[in-house]
Amino acid sequence: KRSYSIAVIAGDGIGKEVMPEGVRALEAASAAFGFQLDLKWHEFSSCDYYLKHGQMMPDDWKQQIGPVDAIFFGAVGWPETVPDHISLWQSILQFRREYDQYVNLRPVRLMPGVPCPLAGREPGDIDFWVVRENTEGEYSSVGGHMFPGTDREIVIQETVMTRLGVDRVLRYAFDLASKRERKHVTSATKSNGIAITMPFWDSRVEAIAAEYAGVSHDKYHIDILAAQFVMNPQRFDVVVASNLFGDILSDLGPACTGTIGVAPSANINPEGAFPSLFEPVHGSAPDIAGQGIANPVGQIWSAAMMLEHLGETAAAASVLAAIEETLVSANGRTRDLKGNASTEECGKAVASLI
Amino acid sequence: KRSYSIAVIAGDGIGKEVMPEGVRALEAASAAFGFQLDLKWHEFSSCDYYLKHGQMMPDDWKQQIGPVDAIFFGAVGWPETVPDHISLWQSILQFRREYDQYVNLRPVRLMPGVPCPLAGREPGDIDFWVVRENTEGEYSSVGGHMFPGTDREIVIQETVMTRLGVDRVLRYAFDLASKRERKHVTSATKSNGIAITMPFWDSRVEAIAAEYAGVSHDKYHIDILAAQFVMNPQRFDVVVASNLFGDILSDLGPACTGTIGVAPSANINPEGAFPSLFEPVHGSAPDIAGQGIANPVGQIWSAAMMLEHLGETAAAASVLAAIEETLVSANGRTRDLKGNASTEECGKAVASLI
Ligand SMILES: CC(C)[C@H](C(=O)O)[C@@H](O)C(=O)O
Ligand SMILES: CC(C)[C@H](C(=O)O)[C@@H](O)C(=O)O
Repeated sequence: KRSYSIAVIAGDGIGKEVMPEGVRALEAASAAFGFQLDLKWHEFSSCDYYLKHGQMMPDDWKQQIGPVDAIFFGAVGWPETVPDHISLWQSILQFRREYDQYVNLRPVRLMPGVPCPLAGREPGDIDFWVVRENTEGEYSSVGGHMFPGTDREIVIQETVMTRLGVDRVLRYAFDLASKRERKHVTSATKSNGIAITMPFWDSRVEAIAAEYAGVSHDKYHIDILAAQFVMNPQRFDVVVASNLFGDILSDLGPACTGTIGVAPSANINPEGAFPSLFEPVHGSAPDIAGQGIANPVGQIWSAAMMLEHLGETAAAASVLAAIEETLVSANGRTRDLKGNASTEECGKAVASLI
Repeated sequence: KRSYSIAVIAGDGIGKEVMPEGVRALEAASAAFGFQLDLKWHEFSSCDYYLKHGQMMPDDWKQQIGPVDAIFFGAVGWPETVPDHISLWQSILQFRREYDQYVNLRPVRLMPGVPCPLAGREPGDIDFWVVRENTEGEYSSVGGHMFPGTDREIVIQETVMTRLGVDRVLRYAFDLASKRERKHVTSATKSNGIAITMPFWDSRVEAIAAEYAGVSHDKYHIDILAAQFVMNPQRFDVVVASNLFGDILSDLGPACTGTIGVAPSANINPEGAFPSLFEPVHGSAPDIAGQGIANPVGQIWSAAMMLEHLGETAAAASVLAAIEETLVSANGRTRDLKGNASTEECGKAVASLI
């Protein structure tokens, strides 16, 4: 019998509320599609853990996680007690780097039942992927602080891009596009203003594109690209971007399709040398945490992406279909989508349809 | 008689087409409001100039511009012949730095007659300012390239922020907010991921905010902030951002209100030690250049911002009113706004109403 071991990390805030619904969907899929799940929950990678231990994770977190098939992740951060740049760098950003999850894959898709803030768009009109570089670029810890506390104070932060790091995520994007109908890659750049790293990025796009005769490509500066997400979202197929630009685009895209509350993401190590990690795009949302009203669809859709990654394609499709069916009924949708379901009711509605 | 000397730089592409309309509006305002204009056109800061001279501007460009009251600027860039990072760094980015135009001020306003891509928004609903740091930050020329052409290739680009540079643009933003009705500043950050410069930016926001008891403030990470521009644009009053984040937000904002074709910007040296520069947000648009169909409203609105800056408040208001009136008629609007006017017809329509 097929069996998967999965590390479950709920994290902080609404992470703790949406994770049980993500797991409920996984268990429904396991029953329906005949595979076994071995779930191991972890307390670490949370601000609660930090308050007890002075760090977000134990020193031996890798051993504790062990050789799992995937990591199912909620949301981290509780700025009231731990500054974000500490809680995030010691948790999700560390996973992405130490497990070399160099692709962050996020769908932008207009779903039935989700009110779209853009005028006149229908489900089907918007359907593309953002492929984000996930280990280097603008998210570096290199740099420093000089003359702190004085008028001469200066801070420096280095963006670091490597040919290895850029080429592999570009290849992932072109591979993905080659399997899609439109076979088109759009590169996010800012080579007119960011005059060292981004011209390099552009030159690697040209080099890798030359390997993919069947895939067309173009590039936009990030300012115009953000504008195009609003004005012409139907234009995109696969959008590839650096760490920071991908971060921005993969929140903006879901906003253009209604809400980041339903958006999932996969942090992938494509070679399978390390486990990949699946998490909703939304954060821990301290403002609504503890009320049982958070939208669990981002977490559940992340479960679907995880199942797909594990090779359980039919189960993944079934979870996605259950999400779509749930979103069209007001009793299934949570409040943020003008429905009246609680987090748990929404999760149960999806699970019952799998 | 009041008199102003103004350097006029049309630049490339549609810059050459919209500039005459910007000047037409200025001349109409001069006639109607009784001030004199001394306009001096320059060929440099264009790719045409580059092709003749091997550089975008003459070595003595500052002398050639001389002690003007302002610079009226079109758009620069013609990537077919000169790479953007050369043409832009040797022109607009050089002006911003050498004239210490440390504030880039851009309105985000839903105008009558402009179809809004966001569902259910009316003129009046969206009306805020983006205040962008314009001289330092992510747009640095510091960094380098190692092992070029090999598998070990690596590029590094340094973001540099100084207390002097950050504080002065924050003060400008808080000053501006203090004169507005809602008196609210929103800061764009990414201190959860960009772990050196952005926490510094946040700490300066707190320090400067403490000087302005009457102004409230909040902060959003740039990913969520971009999403909020789409989902809740009515929420903003004054948004202050670093060079790169401000660049992105000030294209995204105008896109949310319909088009970047009408958006103006002011590159301001608030102390008046150097001339300020006024330019549309849009670029040289090679794809539509030479057809006489470009929208001149961004250029004309930039003229209004320039008049305001020169103290010609009544003239500025009149130009803005003329723009608003022109935009509501199909014969005044250009094609991009579903009208049928040419660039020149739109410009003449505005001028006739000043
Ligand atoms: C042309 C480019 C360098 C410039 C910038 O990024 O500042 C433009 O996008 C702008 O916003 O004025
Ligand atoms: C929490 C934060 C560090 C993270 C990021 O910027 O990568 C988040 O916004 C995301 O997109 O996963």
